[in-house]
Amino acid sequence: MSRYWSAVTRKLTPYVPGEQPKEAGLIKLNTNENPYGPSPRVIEAVHVQANETLRLYPDPDSAALKSAIGAHYGVASECVFVGNGSDEILAHAFHALLKQDQPILLPDISYSFYPVYCGLYGIDYATVPLTDDFQIRVDDYIRPNGGIIFANPNAPTGCPLPLAQIERLLQANTESVVVIDEAYVDFGGESAVSLIHRYPQLLVVHTLSKSRALAGLRVGFAIGDAELITGLTRVKDSFNSYPLGRLAQVGALAAIQDQVYFDLTRQHIIVSREKLTADLMALGFVVLPSAANFIFARHPQFQGEQLAAMLRERHIIVRHFRQPHRIAPFLRITVGTDSQCQALVDAFAAILQGATAATPSFRTG
Amino acid sequence: MSRYWSAVTRKLTPYVPGEQPKEAGLIKLNTNENPYGPSPRVIEAVHVQANETLRLYPDPDSAALKSAIGAHYGVASECVFVGNGSDEILAHAFHALLKQDQPILLPDISYSFYPVYCGLYGIDYATVPLTDDFQIRVDDYIRPNGGIIFANPNAPTGCPLPLAQIERLLQANTESVVVIDEAYVDFGGESAVSLIHRYPQLLVVHTLSKSRALAGLRVGFAIGDAELITGLTRVKDSFNSYPLGRLAQVGALAAIQDQVYFDLTRQHIIVSREKLTADLMALGFVVLPSAANFIFARHPQFQGEQLAAMLRERHIIVRHFRQPHRIAPFLRITVGTDSQCQALVDAFAAILQGATAATPSFRTG
Repeated sequence: MSRYWSAVTRKLTPYVPGEQPKEAGLIKLNTNENPYGPSPRVIEAVHVQANETLRLYPDPDSAALKSAIGAHYGVASECVFVGNGSDEILAHAFHALLKQDQPILLPDISYSFYPVYCGLYGIDYATVPLTDDFQIRVDDYIRPNGGIIFANPNAPTGCPLPLAQIERLLQANTESVVVIDEAYVDFGGESAVSLIHRYPQLLVVHTLSKSRALAGLRVGFAIGDAELITGLTRVKDSFNSYPLGRLAQVGALAAIQDQVYFDLTRQHIIVSREKLTADLMALGFVVLPSAANFIFARHPQFQGEQLAAMLRERHIIVRHFRQPHRIAPFLRITVGTDSQCQALVDAFAAILQGATAATPSFRTG
Repeated sequence: MSRYWSAVTRKLTPYVPGEQPKEAGLIKLNTNENPYGPSPRVIEAVHVQANETLRLYPDPDSAALKSAIGAHYGVASECVFVGNGSDEILAHAFHALLKQDQPILLPDISYSFYPVYCGLYGIDYATVPLTDDFQIRVDDYIRPNGGIIFANPNAPTGCPLPLAQIERLLQANTESVVVIDEAYVDFGGESAVSLIHRYPQLLVVHTLSKSRALAGLRVGFAIGDAELITGLTRVKDSFNSYPLGRLAQVGALAAIQDQVYFDLTRQHIIVSREKLTADLMALGFVVLPSAANFIFARHPQFQGEQLAAMLRERHIIVRHFRQPHRIAPFLRITVGTDSQCQALVDAFAAILQGATAATPSFRTG
């Protein structure tokens, strides 16, 4: 604590991202990266752009990228905002749209960065508990509020909310902004982008880190009514004129335009997720129904932290959250390649067998 | 203006960056880009890194880059902060360090983004006039304040403040943070980095956009006492865990390590600046003494806006600021290649000759 810090800096509780281990040889299933790498067209576009023109500022408006995203989703460029990863966009959305007189609403279990943004910008919030089976119940959000934000599919549960439920929320909640964080929607959720023209209070946030396999490039985008986008742009232009460099702009553009690769890889991940879910259930795991590129699972015989540690001994890392208490038994496991998933299943099988051999109460024969 | 915007968004006056023209064939001397391009090692490093590992998140702490910057300046990594361009770092510095009860102090003529940050974070500020010859007078800042920020060399004047004056300010001002924005210092200013161990209230901010010719990559850094850096990091980790992508980290690292190329190009720009200054003075221009990669110049017979428009007709773009009033006669002109500088001088000569021919009062024979 320094006497030179501002009052807000003293009070912050920063977000803690998943570990980015430096050692090689780990099976890394802890930060929901895509196992397949970006489209080869992305790599090519970056190589073409990596030249002496890096001396020049990028387009501050990322016009070509916004146009491509707009074309992909069938919306005008004026309805598209881009940023240095979706975390930056979420930060701007809290500052530009969700900082209101009344408290905003967010699920008690969701992306744990949301309360951090509230701390950064001095925003009051109220948490709304998920149901006992970890679902968002729209009726719980139909009450006075300064804004609403949640992830769909939700994090870290992976559970999707049907589009009809989101529309019901939008019909009931017209006086404040509703932000839907669709970081994982391309793996089986229903996107709310189709609703933006009917609901000017709706902002949908996407990332290229997951379904486009570009976590290392740092690009996200948001889609909403042009007036919401203008609000975000006002904050962006008061923060950093050039959030996306030249390489990020061309790489992201190439990713958005390679529909074939996008569909192929996300379908592969969906198939792998369903197999992994079935395999873990066969080992006695409870697995929440996921529409994301990860699953959220617990085993009745183990604590989550203990299981994560045993996997780490076997060179597999997954994510464990200590808080809130009722998700402590769970592990969030990224869907990897099929061989990575198989290695995980084998590791769990060995752990369970070891537990059965070591603990008399587990013996059945 | 939307009813969904936050109060702060409604009140913002965003920064307007220099034009990034889309048409080809212009001589672009308006945003202080480096005419020589980045080190070939940067291009090579980006090519090596542009592969399937873009699917993985970057190191959230940019440890290798911070270590290289620390080694370059002879400070520990804990005294180094990095960000998505120095504008992002300045934004975090306003939020983390300069948001205090008392108004902060900044020159009436300096980087025009500073008052924008104050608007974004609700920071009171007072402007301190430069002297009549556009210099920062340290005595004017020795008074109660919540923090002090200015650029050295200053923008858009290019005028440097000697290190002894900065140290005098630091000796007199120990209760609040002093941010020195050294975006242009590598072109002839004296850096205050050498003072950080003696003055824990000092933060020095650098960019790779100018002397490292990487405006298109988006990397900046700050150096200061470890406690100031921790404050910045708390804000960064509450805003975006991964501000620098994998390509930005390796490219910036390569740039910092290529001392030979760095020295060669900045020396070339310094020599070109001195010649350009002399050539313009020979044409009757008043040119402020610059230690930057640009000059700030006016001609007694023309208004700044008029001269900028006449250059534009000749396919040369420079930067003109309407405000504040006393800099309206000036143009800020980036030092380009020698042939670009010559083209500028030729264009000015032609403009002056045209004016002499057209206007009877200019005739001397």
